[in-house]
Amino acid sequence: MALEQPLAKIRGQLQIRSHLARQCLAEFLGVFVLMLLTQGAVAQAVTSGETKGNFFTMFLAGSLAVTISIYVGGNVSGAHLNPAFSLAMCLLGRLPWAKFPIYSLVQLLSSFCASGTTYILYYDALQNYTGGNLTVTGPKETASIFATYPAPYLSLNNGFLDQVLGTGILIVGLLAILDRRNKGVPAGLEPVVVGLLVLVIGLSMGANCGFPLNPARDLGPRLFTYIAGWGPEVFRWEMAPGAVLHSLPSANISVPESPASFS
Amino acid sequence: MALEQPLAKIRGQLQIRSHLARQCLAEFLGVFVLMLLTQGAVAQAVTSGETKGNFFTMFLAGSLAVTISIYVGGNVSGAHLNPAFSLAMCLLGRLPWAKFPIYSLVQLLSSFCASGTTYILYYDALQNYTGGNLTVTGPKETASIFATYPAPYLSLNNGFLDQVLGTGILIVGLLAILDRRNKGVPAGLEPVVVGLLVLVIGLSMGANCGFPLNPARDLGPRLFTYIAGWGPEVFRWEMAPGAVLHSLPSANISVPESPASFS
Amino acid sequence: MALEQPLAKIRGQLQIRSHLARQCLAEFLGVFVLMLLTQGAVAQAVTSGETKGNFFTMFLAGSLAVTISIYVGGNVSGAHLNPAFSLAMCLLGRLPWAKFPIYSLVQLLSSFCASGTTYILYYDALQNYTGGNLTVTGPKETASIFATYPAPYLSLNNGFLDQVLGTGILIVGLLAILDRRNKGVPAGLEPVVVGLLVLVIGLSMGANCGFPLNPARDLGPRLFTYIAGWGPEVFRWEMAPGAVLHSLPSANISVPESPASFS
Amino acid sequence: MALEQPLAKIRGQLQIRSHLARQCLAEFLGVFVLMLLTQGAVAQAVTSGETKGNFFTMFLAGSLAVTISIYVGGNVSGAHLNPAFSLAMCLLGRLPWAKFPIYSLVQLLSSFCASGTTYILYYDALQNYTGGNLTVTGPKETASIFATYPAPYLSLNNGFLDQVLGTGILIVGLLAILDRRNKGVPAGLEPVVVGLLVLVIGLSMGANCGFPLNPARDLGPRLFTYIAGWGPEVFRWEMAPGAVLHSLPSANISVPESPASFS
Repeated sequence: MALEQPLAKIRGQLQIRSHLARQCLAEFLGVFVLMLLTQGAVAQAVTSGETKGNFFTMFLAGSLAVTISIYVGGNVSGAHLNPAFSLAMCLLGRLPWAKFPIYSLVQLLSSFCASGTTYILYYDALQNYTGGNLTVTGPKETASIFATYPAPYLSLNNGFLDQVLGTGILIVGLLAILDRRNKGVPAGLEPVVVGLLVLVIGLSMGANCGFPLNPARDLGPRLFTYIAGWGPEVFRWEMAPGAVLHSLPSANISVPESPASFS
Repeated sequence: MALEQPLAKIRGQLQIRSHLARQCLAEFLGVFVLMLLTQGAVAQAVTSGETKGNFFTMFLAGSLAVTISIYVGGNVSGAHLNPAFSLAMCLLGRLPWAKFPIYSLVQLLSSFCASGTTYILYYDALQNYTGGNLTVTGPKETASIFATYPAPYLSLNNGFLDQVLGTGILIVGLLAILDRRNKGVPAGLEPVVVGLLVLVIGLSMGANCGFPLNPARDLGPRLFTYIAGWGPEVFRWEMAPGAVLHSLPSANISVPESPASFS
Repeated sequence: MALEQPLAKIRGQLQIRSHLARQCLAEFLGVFVLMLLTQGAVAQAVTSGETKGNFFTMFLAGSLAVTISIYVGGNVSGAHLNPAFSLAMCLLGRLPWAKFPIYSLVQLLSSFCASGTTYILYYDALQNYTGGNLTVTGPKETASIFATYPAPYLSLNNGFLDQVLGTGILIVGLLAILDRRNKGVPAGLEPVVVGLLVLVIGLSMGANCGFPLNPARDLGPRLFTYIAGWGPEVFRWEMAPGAVLHSLPSANISVPESPASFS
Repeated sequence: MALEQPLAKIRGQLQIRSHLARQCLAEFLGVFVLMLLTQGAVAQAVTSGETKGNFFTMFLAGSLAVTISIYVGGNVSGAHLNPAFSLAMCLLGRLPWAKFPIYSLVQLLSSFCASGTTYILYYDALQNYTGGNLTVTGPKETASIFATYPAPYLSLNNGFLDQVLGTGILIVGLLAILDRRNKGVPAGLEPVVVGLLVLVIGLSMGANCGFPLNPARDLGPRLFTYIAGWGPEVFRWEMAPGAVLHSLPSANISVPESPASFS
């Protein structure tokens, strides 16, 4: 009998009693799935020379990745997946402030690990596509697989507005989707409709910056690419998260050959 | 404690007691989200030279925008989003006639504001794409980002029929989707299926006029582009809303270089 | 008061008492919506030179058209939409045999009317695309907007197998989707999942014949195009419905310039 | 009366009393639908020269095929569709070990039969496309219609990691989707969300190997193509299922002209 159900036994022994530990694990897994699928879709499109992916599959996969990762994080951690969202939950009194740094750190760590996994998963493809020369700019740039970069024409002001507006529409949409007293989505299908919301924002407001909207989603990959061989250029004009943005007034704004112009 | 839940407090103080004010706000927000996402998708496709969007993503984003904006307007205002729909609700006795001009004005105002927001959001992209020359016709025209224009071959009669048929299929589909006594869609998922209905109408009946079907959706952006620098040409052959159509028998029908022929 | 609710009054007066008449109306409306949307998507792709549609949007719109038309037909007529399906319902004892010829005739009539409507809707576009020369073959053929034609390489045997297999998978899938005792789809969402089924069959088994699978869907448009100016060639090698197929052993099998080779 | 309901009568007589036989039939039908639709989509894209299909429709059809085949297998057999999944169910104590070889054999048999059916269905198309020369490599290769082949740049280690990671994300996603105690998907819609999961994995992790993840899905078609005229080359570098992988250290790793490079 013990022989017949080994996995069931192991599963029982692995049950995690600590509530916080389970929340951290759920958050880690959620962000990991989100980032691996999101980055994987870009890597697939870029390294195949757009024969197995294109801008649409990137946006679509990124949206479905949000759907799946909300199911993964589920009700255990609330599937924040985003320090900015965890902060909002603290402000609303739904998450104790003491948990905020823990959640954020786990999200960042997971994002970093997912970037490393994407790198290993597409290691042969990256070598084949770039000839081993990992760059942030130029026609064969691959830094945009991991983090998002603004379009070359974008000014700092326009970029700031882009992030504020994108985040605003995201929040309005989320509140509408989750509000059962209004119309609301049937229980268990919210992640699917949130995925549709993310898709339409990507298709409508994704041209300027690639709609990062998530500090962990941005900082983790940027740190990884800095370490993994893309060099310090990955931090130039890093406009992604609104919170970080205004601290960069002296950043190099004019990027002559931005990756986005070739994607 | 006050420190821990500031947003919850503010939320409480912001609660709007007036029913009509809440309806107007819901209608304003719904139309704003609808228009910003719809126009944004066209702006993304046009200003990126179709590298981050194309005709399909425009139709898809427009449909998903309808889905999201119905969730936003929800049960508060009924999510009319359209003066024509508000009129129909009055005729059916589901909206008091006194509210019709208020609803229509709010819808038009929201549509105008959303056009301005799209303009600001894609300001750098528009400047980069057009070199600052905002035109209604020609290969680099950008007026079609905001309002819809008929295909160059289209006669007035065919355009009129196009709008009547499109509106007819939309209404038949809506009634079927919302009719619980017949088959009907489960509560809370109607917005998603309405989005599918809008998508298929766009893919099947969107070639002639771009299926505007909404006076507020058409007039607001046209007014904005007139003011913002595209000039009076935006009103030529403005066939969009059926109600306006028959008042234009003397309009300039033959547009030699219509924008649609380059989109 | 009478002034305030005129539509509600009219609606009351229009209520149809006869059960059969309501079924016929539902079946007519369902097939009409199905055919107009399906043909419209092909017309949009063809007459725009694939700038506003392509093979994927045709398949997608065709599937969504099935979804919407099932909601339209709904529980009133059962949304057969297809003489072959009505026949199956008779064989299963779910439809009285006496209703079979009525259902079939209504379906055929609706299909014919929808073809005429598509023709009028895209009249200007057709004239602009073809220069007024309506043909069944050649690079500017437009007959395939209305009815389906087999690929040029297809033999009669392979075409027969194609239709049998496609119908088989459709029936197996339908039974699985509708079987509540097994897994089944939640009530009210069956039309959406049936749409997905039709989409995947189109993407996987649509290359040989364009998967007509419906005698009314095939015969109605063919009759219309015969009358409207495409001439008797529309009946050559008309392989669509399995029931008609075996009666055509002497048909002209080798079509040198089939439309499908240019679509 | 007997005349009126012949199918209902036949259906009654066909009712299968044996539970195992019904399970085997459900598993056979499920795998058959899955494989026919998956292979059909590739055949449609390849033999039409990508005019009626492309990489996206292949991934999409493959995902929808999973959705439909889960409805087909349903609660009768549990819709394993995959020896690896049946093995996991045995390990978890949800399937008796005695049924494992039966399930696996039925899955493999069905996969083989589906390959033969795809071959017959697209026989004329294959002859037309290849001129009768069935090859595993070269610009007109057609072996990849049936089984998956790794990208030419892929090393054995990277391929192994690819399969382990893909299977891992699939399992994490499945457990999250099916876990009602967490968030979970409403009953009856799990197959649709599992289809979305398979789609995003295909779009994000499908570039290296084509994400086979299923020994039956791989071995059946490979056997069929070996017999049907593609020759022994179909077994070179057959990396697909993780379980088979490590037994091939001496396989011919460098495939100079892999089919994937032309797809």
